[in-house]
Amino acid sequence: MVFFDHDDDKPHEECGVFGVFGSLEASLLTALGLHALQHRGQEAAGIVSYDGKRFSSERHMGLVGESFGGDLRQRLPGHAAIGHNRYSTQGRPMARNIQPIFADLDTGGFAVAHNGNLTNARILRQELVRNGAIFQSTMDTEVILHLVARSPKKKFVERLVDAMHQIEGGYALVGITGKKLIGARDPIGLRPLILGRHGKSYVLASETCALDIIGAEFVREIENGEVVVISEEGIESIRAFPPRPPSPCIFEYVYFARPDSFIQGRSVYEVRRRMGNQLALETHADADVIVPVPDSGVPAALGFSEASGIPFQMGIIRNHYVGRTFIQPTHTGRQTAISKKHSPNRAVLEGKRVILVDDSIVRGNTSKKIVQMVREAGAREIHFRSASPPIVNPDFYGIDMAAKSELFAATHTHEEMVRELKVESLGFLSVPGLYKAIGEPVRNGMQPQFADHCFTGDYPTQLLDHQRAQADKERQLSLLDDV
Amino acid sequence: MVFFDHDDDKPHEECGVFGVFGSLEASLLTALGLHALQHRGQEAAGIVSYDGKRFSSERHMGLVGESFGGDLRQRLPGHAAIGHNRYSTQGRPMARNIQPIFADLDTGGFAVAHNGNLTNARILRQELVRNGAIFQSTMDTEVILHLVARSPKKKFVERLVDAMHQIEGGYALVGITGKKLIGARDPIGLRPLILGRHGKSYVLASETCALDIIGAEFVREIENGEVVVISEEGIESIRAFPPRPPSPCIFEYVYFARPDSFIQGRSVYEVRRRMGNQLALETHADADVIVPVPDSGVPAALGFSEASGIPFQMGIIRNHYVGRTFIQPTHTGRQTAISKKHSPNRAVLEGKRVILVDDSIVRGNTSKKIVQMVREAGAREIHFRSASPPIVNPDFYGIDMAAKSELFAATHTHEEMVRELKVESLGFLSVPGLYKAIGEPVRNGMQPQFADHCFTGDYPTQLLDHQRAQADKERQLSLLDDV
Amino acid sequence: MVFFDHDDDKPHEECGVFGVFGSLEASLLTALGLHALQHRGQEAAGIVSYDGKRFSSERHMGLVGESFGGDLRQRLPGHAAIGHNRYSTQGRPMARNIQPIFADLDTGGFAVAHNGNLTNARILRQELVRNGAIFQSTMDTEVILHLVARSPKKKFVERLVDAMHQIEGGYALVGITGKKLIGARDPIGLRPLILGRHGKSYVLASETCALDIIGAEFVREIENGEVVVISEEGIESIRAFPPRPPSPCIFEYVYFARPDSFIQGRSVYEVRRRMGNQLALETHADADVIVPVPDSGVPAALGFSEASGIPFQMGIIRNHYVGRTFIQPTHTGRQTAISKKHSPNRAVLEGKRVILVDDSIVRGNTSKKIVQMVREAGAREIHFRSASPPIVNPDFYGIDMAAKSELFAATHTHEEMVRELKVESLGFLSVPGLYKAIGEPVRNGMQPQFADHCFTGDYPTQLLDHQRAQADKERQLSLLDDV
Amino acid sequence: MVFFDHDDDKPHEECGVFGVFGSLEASLLTALGLHALQHRGQEAAGIVSYDGKRFSSERHMGLVGESFGGDLRQRLPGHAAIGHNRYSTQGRPMARNIQPIFADLDTGGFAVAHNGNLTNARILRQELVRNGAIFQSTMDTEVILHLVARSPKKKFVERLVDAMHQIEGGYALVGITGKKLIGARDPIGLRPLILGRHGKSYVLASETCALDIIGAEFVREIENGEVVVISEEGIESIRAFPPRPPSPCIFEYVYFARPDSFIQGRSVYEVRRRMGNQLALETHADADVIVPVPDSGVPAALGFSEASGIPFQMGIIRNHYVGRTFIQPTHTGRQTAISKKHSPNRAVLEGKRVILVDDSIVRGNTSKKIVQMVREAGAREIHFRSASPPIVNPDFYGIDMAAKSELFAATHTHEEMVRELKVESLGFLSVPGLYKAIGEPVRNGMQPQFADHCFTGDYPTQLLDHQRAQADKERQLSLLDDV
Repeated sequence: MVFFDHDDDKPHEECGVFGVFGSLEASLLTALGLHALQHRGQEAAGIVSYDGKRFSSERHMGLVGESFGGDLRQRLPGHAAIGHNRYSTQGRPMARNIQPIFADLDTGGFAVAHNGNLTNARILRQELVRNGAIFQSTMDTEVILHLVARSPKKKFVERLVDAMHQIEGGYALVGITGKKLIGARDPIGLRPLILGRHGKSYVLASETCALDIIGAEFVREIENGEVVVISEEGIESIRAFPPRPPSPCIFEYVYFARPDSFIQGRSVYEVRRRMGNQLALETHADADVIVPVPDSGVPAALGFSEASGIPFQMGIIRNHYVGRTFIQPTHTGRQTAISKKHSPNRAVLEGKRVILVDDSIVRGNTSKKIVQMVREAGAREIHFRSASPPIVNPDFYGIDMAAKSELFAATHTHEEMVRELKVESLGFLSVPGLYKAIGEPVRNGMQPQFADHCFTGDYPTQLLDHQRAQADKERQLSLLDDV
Repeated sequence: MVFFDHDDDKPHEECGVFGVFGSLEASLLTALGLHALQHRGQEAAGIVSYDGKRFSSERHMGLVGESFGGDLRQRLPGHAAIGHNRYSTQGRPMARNIQPIFADLDTGGFAVAHNGNLTNARILRQELVRNGAIFQSTMDTEVILHLVARSPKKKFVERLVDAMHQIEGGYALVGITGKKLIGARDPIGLRPLILGRHGKSYVLASETCALDIIGAEFVREIENGEVVVISEEGIESIRAFPPRPPSPCIFEYVYFARPDSFIQGRSVYEVRRRMGNQLALETHADADVIVPVPDSGVPAALGFSEASGIPFQMGIIRNHYVGRTFIQPTHTGRQTAISKKHSPNRAVLEGKRVILVDDSIVRGNTSKKIVQMVREAGAREIHFRSASPPIVNPDFYGIDMAAKSELFAATHTHEEMVRELKVESLGFLSVPGLYKAIGEPVRNGMQPQFADHCFTGDYPTQLLDHQRAQADKERQLSLLDDV
Repeated sequence: MVFFDHDDDKPHEECGVFGVFGSLEASLLTALGLHALQHRGQEAAGIVSYDGKRFSSERHMGLVGESFGGDLRQRLPGHAAIGHNRYSTQGRPMARNIQPIFADLDTGGFAVAHNGNLTNARILRQELVRNGAIFQSTMDTEVILHLVARSPKKKFVERLVDAMHQIEGGYALVGITGKKLIGARDPIGLRPLILGRHGKSYVLASETCALDIIGAEFVREIENGEVVVISEEGIESIRAFPPRPPSPCIFEYVYFARPDSFIQGRSVYEVRRRMGNQLALETHADADVIVPVPDSGVPAALGFSEASGIPFQMGIIRNHYVGRTFIQPTHTGRQTAISKKHSPNRAVLEGKRVILVDDSIVRGNTSKKIVQMVREAGAREIHFRSASPPIVNPDFYGIDMAAKSELFAATHTHEEMVRELKVESLGFLSVPGLYKAIGEPVRNGMQPQFADHCFTGDYPTQLLDHQRAQADKERQLSLLDDV
Repeated sequence: MVFFDHDDDKPHEECGVFGVFGSLEASLLTALGLHALQHRGQEAAGIVSYDGKRFSSERHMGLVGESFGGDLRQRLPGHAAIGHNRYSTQGRPMARNIQPIFADLDTGGFAVAHNGNLTNARILRQELVRNGAIFQSTMDTEVILHLVARSPKKKFVERLVDAMHQIEGGYALVGITGKKLIGARDPIGLRPLILGRHGKSYVLASETCALDIIGAEFVREIENGEVVVISEEGIESIRAFPPRPPSPCIFEYVYFARPDSFIQGRSVYEVRRRMGNQLALETHADADVIVPVPDSGVPAALGFSEASGIPFQMGIIRNHYVGRTFIQPTHTGRQTAISKKHSPNRAVLEGKRVILVDDSIVRGNTSKKIVQMVREAGAREIHFRSASPPIVNPDFYGIDMAAKSELFAATHTHEEMVRELKVESLGFLSVPGLYKAIGEPVRNGMQPQFADHCFTGDYPTQLLDHQRAQADKERQLSLLDDV
């Protein structure tokens, strides 16, 4: 269908979630919210609404804006709705893997969508199947659904907490039952979830930018390990786990979140600008111009220019008619697609000493192509700067970022990277510098304030599936190819 | 999409099933078989194949010939395949209700499709949900799947038999696992299933006409209560229930089966022609011409002409560009559609005394319209003849035929029917006459040779859901509307 | 898309036309009329309506019933409309060749559709192009449009007559201008066109069956060489040519027209039945059963049975889920498609001496396959009977029937045909017998009552393009492939 | 289908054109070129190729990247191709108005596409229709085609020149005949067209960015009034008009062209940056931050920051999942769409004195909404700056920019604009300042170096249709609505 280009060499978040309770425009608000969260997943989107009697559902491949036009209030009626944008970590790109998913439980209907990844999904799944559970998709979300369905507890929320005690990993989930909108966040708050208010309605969303688009006000973040239950009676908060400090994913600051979003009260844009300031202090180079890799590198490049006094220019132009990431996640597509997204602005680059600023380097493919493009446009020197530290470890909580063997910084020395990128110099922000830019003067080595394992190797949870998978490489999760 | 006309006033079979094992063209043969069985269900069709490693699946709304073109061997590879045509009894016309359905069980993948209706599906479903089962469709087939998944037995076939002991009703099912093609028929053989051979492959199908289209030879009928297991080792037969005489649905002879099919060794066409012979003997009228309601009334009308000596003519022309039944099963569609399907052949009808022969009368709507059409074309007298007895009871085994309160013969006296139809006379074949035409000299009142409850009220099984449903009218099966 | 089977071996009419003036449901009536005329062309359909200010248009590949659902009065508003069904003689199966076509002329908008073929279209087209005309399709209709546009006459109807004086061939056309519905028929009336009345509206159609479907009454046939102009002032008739007896295409009786239509006051069904009577007299054989090739052979087979006393039975069953002709007119498709359309009814055929009755034999392919199928079903003897004379000459007026070198009867002796068909005997209706069945005691050899050139070689007009084409084989009509 | 947002308040260019001769990947290169030119028109795109024997064509509504995927070399084979992106000035958004258009002329096939608008198209069209021409679209391009077809000249190129002598207005056209790729530009060079070379192939394109995407090198601009003919013999240049200085549209610099394109040897990005420098000099305000309206305002805002020393920040975030302009050109769509495209970056705006820089103000609607959004995000002062002079006159050469009565600056005094926008101050670049930024020290009042009529009222050609249209408002161009 569409041959959108994509950010080949970026970490990919697999999901954005949204939910609303108490508005007759629930499904429309959800579509708008998902539209604002589109950067978190472009492969597919789904919305389920509830009108007091019946759940209605639509799930489509492609962008929200392409599928959820028309009169949504008629197609997806009701005062409550949840929605989901998906990239594709677990589960191949097929129709049966689109969230939210729905089931008729003993306690009534339940629809649920989640952002994140369970680190023991495979083990739980095998156990459930052995006990007669039927899986019709390959999504982690279906595991949660089964655990809720099989919980011996009576009340729905108790069942959900019961399920949360069995799963491990990073997740933020939204769900609706006949009477409630529910939000929940994993014990360390790896995946984001916030609460907003829109008139008399309550809203749950992955980021604050989804509140802004509908004119909702920010109330607070859902806390790590918290379950919120929103109903006509108002909001109830349940602490499903013993208290501990949160450890949210540091990549929300580095790349995932939209720059106009706020996380933990901090402007993402300002954090990225300060990362640029810090980067300039740590990795100065003499140059004529600071050029961002657009759009994600812009705030850090502005910060770099600010701190270094070297002028900022748009030396690379981004074609607007391509999505931020790809709709056809095939390897071939990835290779041919890239040249159509970025164009060199020769007038800025020719004969210049250029500092190229990007948010991060993952596999290095895109960086190499951009360097080559900038060089062919006449740059005299190219100094590549990454506004985050070297990525040397994979993620297991829902970020699609390549295996360790594909990570550029994990497989090359500094000198090898300089040589492969063909740049005059290469610099990364340091881990302490990153913490400083975010606003934490010092990283707490015993219990880091953020999940920063990609940079440091300190994983915040066990990785059961991963350990098992090493031994059990070939077993396929599902046998069905569905069209 | 399509505004096909349909046989408004006919009983509707909900399904045709087909399966093949041992051919590299398994999915293509299945598509052809389903095409030959298209008269058993036109709303949707699905095929699942297995290539030794992976199951592949396609399910589409609409006719087989519209969706399953192109290179099927590539899209649905493998040596084994099953397929299903659906009308729509249980479950509204939506994508998630298309068979076959698939699940990853503890014993491996399993795909299954079935024709028929369980009379205790609702009760089983409620119990399963209470025990943590998750339902993602409203199909009876999913109940069977859950029973298989939860059976304590070790071997797959034992689990299936275990499930069959829990369900009641009429069903014929086909399934594939990693190594086997499986066919099964309910304890009294209500729904048809036959076995054929195509070269080295084995074939299962609802009717013999599906063997003819692929050039397969008929081997035998699957017996009532039998499970057949086809694998590379050949065929194994399991008798899942104590032996008893079969009691197949009599409507296969009256209307469902294609005239070129054979049931229990009898030509359906010949049976219908003898029904016409018998009808002429029982309900003679003086007339100039015998006119069938095409196409289902043709064999009986020929038989009537033969026995009465009155000439047979095509006094009603059928438009070929409409399906036998409807794709949009809404009430409104039914009403407006009818006039486009039949046209009067004025040259045959004008000034004539006409005997109109149809296979049956269900709600009477179509009959009234046809009588009116024939009258307006100039017929002087109209004698309506039904080649089956009055339908006075509903079915619960998978025939969609209107509630008792809608059945014409159940709600009108003979005189009222004559008056409403506006005919000079009306005649039905008798129950003994019907048995005679089929080839059974006498109906066995203690254990009828056929399931003839629609004519007689003798239901061959318990009707658990129906009894429960009386008390529990409003509870809806699923809460989800899915698009 | 669709793999409809088709009547491989039948002559193909390329068009049905319909027009209505004076009803607010003009486009809906046109869709119904085209639906009734669907047997005349299944590849594509188009409707243009006019609401007093603006023309609206829809043209689709595929069946009328598949494309023209929904609220037609809104999409195609107005009191006047014309429509067209197309098979595909001239012009490949592509979107830009769908009729009606429209142009903004000096006299205002004009939409036109036609059934038939011009025998000098190519010559006219070349001349027009030399004089600066721009052709955007390969349809004959566009030639007529250009001739009208370039006529020096002032009034629209005079321009049309002017154009008719330049074209040769067989055609029936319908058109709408801002104020008028226009119908016209070629000088010898080769292609059919009739006039009906529906309340206060007037209707034009290819056949009377299109009047019946909307409840319109038949008024009269448009005469050969006549132009009718229907407006708010009523009907005006213009005789565009000197009077001469008509010579309509005899194939309308033999195959094209629907059996419930009337031509020249004769029931098509009755004519075909009498063709069967006559065929029995001319080609008797001792046999057990008369079997028609359904559906087109049914009336003649009934007539054969009537005259011979041998019983009529449905020994071949037709699958309803295939169109009468094909949607993909490729040669390959034709070969593989046939087996899916007809099935043998073994109960009727086994061990019997069978007289197989078909309406005609064109290339013989289908006949061979049907004979083989009947033989494999166990027939002891097969006597093939064609209810029309041997087809030994091609048509050039809009019937798609294969070149002379492909015509079975033109390229084989009687003995060779018997041998190739593998039948016990073969019989054709004689030309005098055909005239007699239609109701003309004797064929007028000087000026035959019907265009019967396919049987006799007497072409009723010059064949300019054909003569030219012999010399100029390779020049292609248009250079554009459009999707 | 798609609810892309759009630049409500921007002038819209209606077209981008591209052509290539001499490459076996001609259609693929054309698709890539059109993709790079997508900013010039997003409503529809078309490509015609020629393989030496046959022209092939595809035309689709929507973006190039959505429709022209797959194996283009197979679908559109050949060594020559032309393509076209369309916004929609003349002609409503319907399928029959997509370019390129094709005709079988006396000299052979000819496909043509053009960017621009004829100012005497209506008059020519009426004359052509009076002389028997048939129009099947409402596009100006069809007028050119008819003039070529009817030219008395013998050679194709002479015919084209003949046609160019009859038309007036601004246009750049590309065409292919059997042997040639042709490019032509109007006598004053209003619409852009450049020549490039790609290996052994020649390329024509609206902008240099379309050369960059395929790796082609820039050769030169096609001159005003020039016709280039590219064939296997190489390039031939014909001067169709007496020499005069060009007067290209100044809006290419202001808004249309992509910033990485070069026009007349000048970098568009640099020109815009200098417009920002100049704007700062002319309209200084005390402020804390310079904020561009992204993306078109970015270069001028950087220039403003540079000249003023006030820091540049991304105070407005643009949602990437919307196109630059939109697909549904309805008035309603325009109103609801805007809020989904821009989001305020509160961290940058709150409590600040903001200078907002945009490229231009057309109707003022978007500007008002953006000001309101920035104010609601907490800006203390807002100083609006337009990097181009007030737009006080409409265009008639292919820019869709609203009627004079809708132009904000044409209908409001400076004070009224300040009041309606609700800003602390408002400033526009001066006309001399604009010329200076482009690199022309002084505007030549007698024969301006650019077509700047929107700012000055000096139209470079006669406006025949416009004058006539005043008198003849109601006559509609075409009567057909086509789906």
